[in-house]
This record gives sequence, structure tokens and C-alpha cells, in this order.
Amino acid sequence: MLRCIQCGHELKADPWVLSCPKCGGLLSSEIKEKPLAISWSLFRTRRFGVWRYKELLPRIKEPVTLGEGGTPLVKIGKKIWVKFEGANPTGSFKDRGMTVAVSLAKESGVKNVICASTGNTAASMAAYASRAGMRSFVVLPKGKVARGKLAQTALHGAIVIEIEGPFDLALDVVREIAGPDTGLYPLNSLNPWRIEGQKTLAYEVVDEIGVPDWIILPIGNAGNISAIWKGFLEMRKFGLIRRMPKLAGVQAEGAAPIARAFKEGRKEPLFTDNPKTIATAIRIGRPVNWAKAFKALRESQGVAEIVSDQEIIDAQRKLGRMGLGVEPASASSYAGYLKLLKGDVMGEEDRIVMIATGHALKDPDSSPPVESIRALNKEEAINKIKELIS
Amino acid sequence: MLRCIQCGHELKADPWVLSCPKCGGLLSSEIKEKPLAISWSLFRTRRFGVWRYKELLPRIKEPVTLGEGGTPLVKIGKKIWVKFEGANPTGSFKDRGMTVAVSLAKESGVKNVICASTGNTAASMAAYASRAGMRSFVVLPKGKVARGKLAQTALHGAIVIEIEGPFDLALDVVREIAGPDTGLYPLNSLNPWRIEGQKTLAYEVVDEIGVPDWIILPIGNAGNISAIWKGFLEMRKFGLIRRMPKLAGVQAEGAAPIARAFKEGRKEPLFTDNPKTIATAIRIGRPVNWAKAFKALRESQGVAEIVSDQEIIDAQRKLGRMGLGVEPASASSYAGYLKLLKGDVMGEEDRIVMIATGHALKDPDSSPPVESIRALNKEEAINKIKELIS
Repeated sequence: MLRCIQCGHELKADPWVLSCPKCGGLLSSEIKEKPLAISWSLFRTRRFGVWRYKELLPRIKEPVTLGEGGTPLVKIGKKIWVKFEGANPTGSFKDRGMTVAVSLAKESGVKNVICASTGNTAASMAAYASRAGMRSFVVLPKGKVARGKLAQTALHGAIVIEIEGPFDLALDVVREIAGPDTGLYPLNSLNPWRIEGQKTLAYEVVDEIGVPDWIILPIGNAGNISAIWKGFLEMRKFGLIRRMPKLAGVQAEGAAPIARAFKEGRKEPLFTDNPKTIATAIRIGRPVNWAKAFKALRESQGVAEIVSDQEIIDAQRKLGRMGLGVEPASASSYAGYLKLLKGDVMGEEDRIVMIATGHALKDPDSSPPVESIRALNKEEAINKIKELIS
Repeated sequence: MLRCIQCGHELKADPWVLSCPKCGGLLSSEIKEKPLAISWSLFRTRRFGVWRYKELLPRIKEPVTLGEGGTPLVKIGKKIWVKFEGANPTGSFKDRGMTVAVSLAKESGVKNVICASTGNTAASMAAYASRAGMRSFVVLPKGKVARGKLAQTALHGAIVIEIEGPFDLALDVVREIAGPDTGLYPLNSLNPWRIEGQKTLAYEVVDEIGVPDWIILPIGNAGNISAIWKGFLEMRKFGLIRRMPKLAGVQAEGAAPIARAFKEGRKEPLFTDNPKTIATAIRIGRPVNWAKAFKALRESQGVAEIVSDQEIIDAQRKLGRMGLGVEPASASSYAGYLKLLKGDVMGEEDRIVMIATGHALKDPDSSPPVESIRALNKEEAINKIKELIS
């Protein structure tokens, strides 16, 4: 069943209905009754990953899957973990939602899919669409997509449309052209079925370490924070957990429509038409899921934080020196954490999980330049290394 | 315990002893007695990944881990699977061996580690060394390492030495300079402890689908084929399996010292000092583990196959259209499969697993060029998409 998050209107689930027919609001999938006999021990009889929790996902006969989810939870401090979503098949958390939404689309006979993207959604959609035998169209903001992500869309055979302007304009194109009349099925995060897959990120964290005190994550289009909060709400509703975590949402200085407004106590975001940050994956000025994000931050008694590009890069380098290769947007979680630590929001006793949304390989140009030492032959190489270690 | 694979000499395990003190041969770690009470059901109580099988790995107090292994086994045909190693933390199967070898090195008080690499080993070592708080040195063949891998070594803080010449020369440098006197611990695949971690690839396949009839994999330095065969031998020895698979080793036309010799019935490889192939990860002319590879191919009643660069690229594109993003070296498994299918080696009833060793993001320049459609504004974008779907 689907429910409008604005007016509360309820309607039967239909893959093609993606906004409220009454008020145009965003829809959310609701599980009416507690699925029979779900428990952590049942889940744990299955492979760790998105489909481990299938009773809490839309019923699919044959999932279109690449083995998504089940990503590492890497301990980097006494009570601090990083959920490393870069280890998903296409290198980002987007695969969690895509396996669910593409599976549903396939069951409904969809042949063509479309999305606007800063890159990760495009790469993921292209991969899952090709696995399902569908054609995919991606609309990208020109010159603002990281190299690795572009290469992925090409490898998975997507048709790429580059538009002059920001991500939000690309999304306008999708909103306008997608629908049953064109047969183009939209796979942006306004699609409630992607959120269903993404909520498994919350299940997996609890599955491994129970409910943490804080979850820190970047906010771009705000689909992920909405999904994670939904996951926790459902777990509580169905008796899988008793307490709830607080959420900390992090945005980049030049693209902080939600974080800035939330910090100022506003009820609506401060949209911008010219978002700027090196963290391309969260370079979004008009987040579609802003209402869900505000709800998640408020209900969880959470906080928002704003970080500069320099803080993001510093955080990426620091994570790199702990063995974690993440793209800049992902590093904003850690940058936000370092900033929040200075205040009195988080305590030393708090158990904190940071979400690292995508792999460093997605954006190789954001890595520090390679400063190599040149050697013409074996002897020279050996001598230079000896100098370095002496 | 360690045993020389050449002269059979046995000695006590010591992280610093990496070749036979009697004859200089390669060493292999041997588990003398069956570990108590191991079983698939015991393993399955643990997180899917390398350390699930800890009774069969060196005893480590505190593993240096990034959550490696537990990679997707993606079904691409009725009885055909791809083991997608690109979903490891640094994007290749190398992480399996690195977690074990770096853990051991750390327990032994090692401060500096070194390796020669075509890129994936370097990226993995740099990540695990940084996680363990060690300094890492990587010796790379100049201009022959894929972009993503270079970026990773920089992000994880390795010191990079680029040498004029092939991989094999870089390995000579490591052989000469590593040792207890310099304190530089070598993490190339001559290191028997990396093989220990890599053998878990075989365990994971069996854990999910039992013993397949064939395993097809690329051969570079031949560490992986050695490791996988060792994994199967141990599973049989300890009663975890009854039958064995056959192995098919694939090399690129311009770097086929093992495959060419094996096909010709020779007992030794046909080394080359000028290996050439776009599959940089297997551009190796003098594979260190050749003897183990010959043994694995022979004992398993397996085959070797040679594929051209064009066949590799075609196979990479085909896998891309199935949703699997792999680097060229990994695609050689599939290229080899397509070639072997034409002969009478494999039958339609055979259950086949191909190993895809590394992620497409490792080498974005090997992806097809992005042929995008440009649009100046929303209307133009919409019109162009409408044309495409009509």
C-alpha cells in the first residue's frame, strides 16, 4: 500500500503511481500488517544483503540482483564504525534501491527506464537495467559528473543526455517525460520503491551491532536519510528493536538547502539554484525528498551540520589513511563527525555509525596527486628506497 | 608449518621466511591436523567473508580487516555464475590475501611493507598497511598502471616508486631489498600468507553452490590459481567436499607464458621479457607462482586458454551489458569461456564459475567512450529523448 506523506491519502501500490493523485505529494510504501514470523534469527539464515530482509520488501518473484548490500561495517574507533557502501556492486549505496525498483519495473513489463543523476544513480540504474534487459536513459548535469561514474554508464550501455545546468534541471526533464504514456519508467529517488531497498542499510547496521546512538550521513537529494529513518521506524513497529538512533545529516557549504534551514529552525529548506561543492554526489540545490529529511531529523531529535569543501577533502584523506577509500560526498559524514565532536551534541560514550555512500574509485580525480619517485633501473630504485627507510 | 613446494623441506612458520632456506623454492603453508569441529554449519554462524573460515587460516589475535570477501556470486546463465571480486573493499580479490598477510606482519611487529605491483596489489596493500598503521612502499612499472589504482595508492598514503621496465623488474627490486635487515616486509604473491587469504575464494563458492565442474580464471602472477586450488585440496582433505572442480586458466595473447607452455604440453613456462596486453593486471611475463599454477592445472585435469586483447574487450562489454562492471583482466575469464565453449572441453550440463578479479572502476579508461547527447535546455532534452524512444 502507498500513503502520501503530505495529505495522508492511501492507495493501492502501483509501480507507475509515483506521486499522490490528490495533492501531488511524495508517496511512501507502507507495510500494513506485521509480516508473519519475522525475526533476526530467520533473517540470519540467509545471505547478508538486501534480500535477507525480503519479508519487509515488496514481494518480487525473481529479483534483479547483483548481490547488493551486505557491505562492511568497519570499526575505526572504540565505539565508532563506518558502513562502507563503496563495496556494493556498482560502488555505491544506490544499488540497494535499484535492485528493488528495477525488479518491480521488470515485473510490470517496463522496457525503458530513465533517471536524472549526479552519477551514482546513473551507474547503478544502467547496471541493473542492463541485467534486466531494459534500455536506460540517464540525464546528467554537463561537466559535473565524476569520471568513474561516466565510464560506468557507458560500460552498462546507458544512453546519456548531458544538459547545461544543475542536477535539479536534469530532474525536471525526467519528471516531465517519464510516465505510462512514454513508457519511460523513472528511477529517481522520488520513486518510493528505491527507498524500500535503501532502508535495508538500517537493518544491516542493527543486524551487526544493534541500534547505535547516532547515524551520521550526507544529504544530497535526501533519499537516503528518508530511507534509513523509515527502516528504523519499521523495525520498531514490528518489534525488531526497542530504541531509536538519532540522525545527523551533513551537507556541503555550497549545497546546504536542508542543513542550513534546519539549523536555523525553519520548517522549509533554503533552496539554491546554483549548488557548488567538490562533492559532486551531493551537489543538489533542490532536494526532492526534503520533507522526509526534515521529518527524519526532527523525529529522531537529530542535528544537521554544514562542512566546507576543505573539511571534506581533509576527511577523505584521513579516512584514506585508515584504509577506507571513499568519494568526497561520503567523506562529508566523517567531516561532520569531526565538527560535531567539538560541540556537546555527541558524547564519548555514544556509539556512532557513519555512512560512507560511495567508493573512492568513483572519482579518481579527487584523490591526492600521485607523487612518485622515478627510477631508471633496479639499482637506482633500490638506492632510493634505502634512502627513504634509513 | 611451511613446506617447500620444490624439495619438500618442512620448517616452522615464520613471517620472515618466504622462500626455502635449502633450495630457494616457494613455500606453502600447511595445516597439519584437521582443525577441531569445523563444518559448514559452524562457518555459517559467522559473517560471510574471509574470516568466516578462520580455523583454516593462520591464527591471528586481532585481524587487520576491512570486511573483505563475501562477494556476490552472480548467476548469468542456467548453470553459470560470475564471482564478482570487484565488490571487495579496494575493488579486487587482492584484499583477501592482504588481510591475512598484513595481520601476521602486524603481529610480528613489522613497520614497513613493500610490494611490486601492476596496481591492484599496491592499492590493497596501501589500504591494509594504512589501516594497520604501517608505512608502505610500492614499486610499479612506469606508465603501465591503471588510473584508478594509482589514485588509490596515493589516497592510502603509499610511497610510490615508478621504474622503467615491466612488472617483473619491479618484483626483482622487491626480492632484493626486502628482508629482516632492511625491515621491509614483502607482500607480493610469493608471500605464502597472502595465498592463505586468497584460498577463501574457493570456500565461498562451495559455501554458496557446492563444488562446480569448472572454475575459469585469469592468470597473471599465478597466485590466485594456486590459492584456489589449495583451497579445494584442503576442503577435500578435511572432509568438507568430496569431488574436485577442473580449473581453466586464461592468459592474454601477449602475456601467456603459462598458458602457451601448458597448451604445448611443456613442463616449464615460456617466459617473456616484454609482456603486452591492455589487461594491465595480468601483464606479467615471468609469473612467480608458475610452478603452483602448472600443478593446479595438471592435478585438476584442467586446461589453459589464450585470448586476444580484442576478445578481452568484447567480453568486458558483454559483461557490462549484463550489469557486471569488470576490469579487462577480469573479462579474460569470460573471453576464455566463450572460446572454450566452441571446443569440446565444457559441456552444457557443466556448472561453471568464472572469477572476475577486479572492478571496472579500477580502469575507467578501458570503458567504452561516453557518447553523450547534448542538450542546452529542458525542451531540447525532452525532444531528443522523445525521438530516441519513438
